[in-house]
Amino acid sequence: MCTKMMREDVTMVVQLQDVIDGIKPLSKDWRKRARERLNNLAIPIGSLGRMLDLAEQLAAIKETLQPSVKKKAIVTMAGDHGVVEEGVSTCPQEVTPQMVYNFVAGGAGINVLAEVAGAEVTVVDMGVAQDFEDLVAQGKILSHKVDYGTGNMVKGPAMTREQAVQSLEAGVNIAAGLVREGVELLGTGDMGIGNTTPSSAIFAAFTGRQVWQVTGRGTGISEQVLEHKIQVIEKALQVNKPDPNDPLDVLAKVGGFEIGGIAGVILGAAYYKVPVVVDGFISTAGALLAQRIAPQAVDYMIAGHCSMEYPHQMMLEELGLSSVLSMNMRLGEGTGAALAMCIIEGAAAVIGKMMTFEECGVARNKSKEYVQ
Amino acid sequence: MCTKMMREDVTMVVQLQDVIDGIKPLSKDWRKRARERLNNLAIPIGSLGRMLDLAEQLAAIKETLQPSVKKKAIVTMAGDHGVVEEGVSTCPQEVTPQMVYNFVAGGAGINVLAEVAGAEVTVVDMGVAQDFEDLVAQGKILSHKVDYGTGNMVKGPAMTREQAVQSLEAGVNIAAGLVREGVELLGTGDMGIGNTTPSSAIFAAFTGRQVWQVTGRGTGISEQVLEHKIQVIEKALQVNKPDPNDPLDVLAKVGGFEIGGIAGVILGAAYYKVPVVVDGFISTAGALLAQRIAPQAVDYMIAGHCSMEYPHQMMLEELGLSSVLSMNMRLGEGTGAALAMCIIEGAAAVIGKMMTFEECGVARNKSKEYVQ
Repeated sequence: MCTKMMREDVTMVVQLQDVIDGIKPLSKDWRKRARERLNNLAIPIGSLGRMLDLAEQLAAIKETLQPSVKKKAIVTMAGDHGVVEEGVSTCPQEVTPQMVYNFVAGGAGINVLAEVAGAEVTVVDMGVAQDFEDLVAQGKILSHKVDYGTGNMVKGPAMTREQAVQSLEAGVNIAAGLVREGVELLGTGDMGIGNTTPSSAIFAAFTGRQVWQVTGRGTGISEQVLEHKIQVIEKALQVNKPDPNDPLDVLAKVGGFEIGGIAGVILGAAYYKVPVVVDGFISTAGALLAQRIAPQAVDYMIAGHCSMEYPHQMMLEELGLSSVLSMNMRLGEGTGAALAMCIIEGAAAVIGKMMTFEECGVARNKSKEYVQ
Repeated sequence: MCTKMMREDVTMVVQLQDVIDGIKPLSKDWRKRARERLNNLAIPIGSLGRMLDLAEQLAAIKETLQPSVKKKAIVTMAGDHGVVEEGVSTCPQEVTPQMVYNFVAGGAGINVLAEVAGAEVTVVDMGVAQDFEDLVAQGKILSHKVDYGTGNMVKGPAMTREQAVQSLEAGVNIAAGLVREGVELLGTGDMGIGNTTPSSAIFAAFTGRQVWQVTGRGTGISEQVLEHKIQVIEKALQVNKPDPNDPLDVLAKVGGFEIGGIAGVILGAAYYKVPVVVDGFISTAGALLAQRIAPQAVDYMIAGHCSMEYPHQMMLEELGLSSVLSMNMRLGEGTGAALAMCIIEGAAAVIGKMMTFEECGVARNKSKEYVQ
């Protein structure tokens, strides 16, 4: 077992290291060229606000003034969490597989919002405490099952270091596959009863923030259960002592399979120069992992929305991200990422299709200096 | 002339009065049925946030649990303003017709964002200081030209009462035509150099707020020009003394042809029970007019975005509206309305296509009380 761990750890180092080394900061030259065009559009300068920032980011990621984000995919990763036996959620664990079936049936939030955005949804079993042989055989979900749920992190590490690597690699591979299929815009999503608990733990572990500052109500726990959830996370951190300078250690000790998978999707997107829309609190915990593994990966991230899981805003600030939407949502699944995708498609059209003053013969504003 | 005014005023009273009398508050029963379904969706209760409020509004407007907003149209209304001779804008007046040509060429912000949203754009000449015989003959724009720009409101009323009625009626008729064509979601937009000035004047006239509180920088004027713009609006209000209890008087004295047209589109939408997405500051001045004419019209409005023209937020609050988006935009044209349309389409899909706990067999959350 020890040998196998070593071998796979080595395999990982080679594979992941290639990806990590291959993630480059955005081209300053393309940023400049994009901004020049945006400043010449036939509008009062700066008057498309955040759309211009998104347009610049898309152009710099794709190194073209006509970035396309038409072909879109959301990766919704499911996993279970041993820590739910501590009573940190209002939902029973069987809701995780039930929701996987709901995703396949097309009746969940992510299905209907992805359809509106024109995005395909790829559902991945990263570690649900149940098998889905039927769905896998029918090609309706992907299986990258690492295990049947994580271990209870109050009693020890959530997973082995080997499993942490496996979950990251799964995400990278899924991103690679979608990019090969021509996907131009990726989005992340999660499903896993109890997964706000590891997300808060990851945030606290990396930043040293007090647990009560970074812990919210998830699916809707009472004040009393929130108190308990905070104690559970504090205990998990004490028992495991994750090393904030070793992202794999943080993922292994207080993470989750789907959170590692999401981090992997983000790393893969950055490696392949595809913008990735990060959903809410759990996805952003994955984004934080990705950023600690490869800091430049942030350049490829777009925060889809700001969740009502209140520490989410803080987590976005930690990453230097500003969310596209603020809809008071807190569902996960990738719903916030899907909703933001049409706005992002709009930003691509702003730089790719709008005309400049010169192109359309509109007289220039006398004042060119005013940018709010 | 006086006779004609009277006659048309009477015609208006009959026609507009029919529309006004026909605008009903939303059905409480449909609101309740919608909320019941939304509360039973297989999600933690309330976790789709603002999407649920939008979904309830759409269902109540259309009196169905499967509201469709697939067929969408933006009405972008253009007009000129005599008050620009006072030097209240950085842009020369000829930009208004130039932008009309840009809309027709498809290179403007509204063109590319409406395309992403799947919305048709109808450009209307409500009163540009130039003719567009070519474009009208080719069916590329609609002409409801009331006059060649409004009068300079510092020197007297912007338009006659007859013209105010004419601009409202034009908007109602355009909405009626689009609804007949099957449009299920309307949006408003504006183009008119100088039109933040009448918009601020309308807001001040109706609410008695100080002019400096409700006046912003439009396309990008300096601090000095802003001071001057405030004085111009104060003078226009002193000279004309618009009666806040007579919306037609406010529109006639300190309004604009495209602002009246937008108010008409909104009244028409409400009359035909079609949701209408209100764009930014100028469109919301039109919405305020519509609300003062028919208070129930607000039930049919959705605020697309919150503009960087800073009094916009205050104006939305005056109407009791909360914007869908906040993208730091201040372009007008209907761009904020177009961008919000895909979010609204998402809300329609949430109520129309998502499954309830019963329908998909997911176990219910133990706590059903938590709604943020």
